[in-house]
Amino acid sequence: MEKKSIVHHVFFWLKDPESVADRNALISGIRKLADIETVKNLSVGIAAETEMRDVIDNSWNVAELMYFDNLNAQAVYQAHPLHLEFIDQCSHLWSKVLVYDMEEV
Amino acid sequence: MEKKSIVHHVFFWLKDPESVADRNALISGIRKLADIETVKNLSVGIAAETEMRDVIDNSWNVAELMYFDNLNAQAVYQAHPLHLEFIDQCSHLWSKVLVYDMEEV
Repeated sequence: MEKKSIVHHVFFWLKDPESVADRNALISGIRKLADIETVKNLSVGIAAETEMRDVIDNSWNVAELMYFDNLNAQAVYQAHPLHLEFIDQCSHLWSKVLVYDMEEV
Repeated sequence: MEKKSIVHHVFFWLKDPESVADRNALISGIRKLADIETVKNLSVGIAAETEMRDVIDNSWNVAELMYFDNLNAQAVYQAHPLHLEFIDQCSHLWSKVLVYDMEEV
């Protein structure tokens, strides 16, 4: 049986969506979160160019997707110094954050 | 180097969020989408009980998460008979759908 995870998917809207430098800075910042020991399978993305439909939200600029073994592992991540450092160093880049936490069933 | 995927994350709001039967019917319907040949790593989830913060949206009831090799594989999925059958059989269960398509970078 496959192990069930907590999936943490976070969408960021940049203050300056036209700035490639800001986008790259945010992407680099997110990648460092992989060093947190409870983070599994970190990936970073941008809005895909799938066919546009009215149910799709592609207004965001950068997203992070990561998996955790359980809720405790996610809580460890939230309070981890590397996560707080990421917020400290990168939060000036975004105007909005939206988080979806999914428990696989 | 790891292969980059298209990540398709869909959130469903049930018409009757209190109905366990409706929730289970939707979850069962989603699981059948794994039979579509271009769908990779399908998982199904419910809102996780992470600590509530104002950036979290946990108002949805069921979510599906799947990966595709590329945009074409995603387009094949959209038009696939099994996907259309899923919409036909399950769309009466939901009041709202929200889709995020992420291209891993």
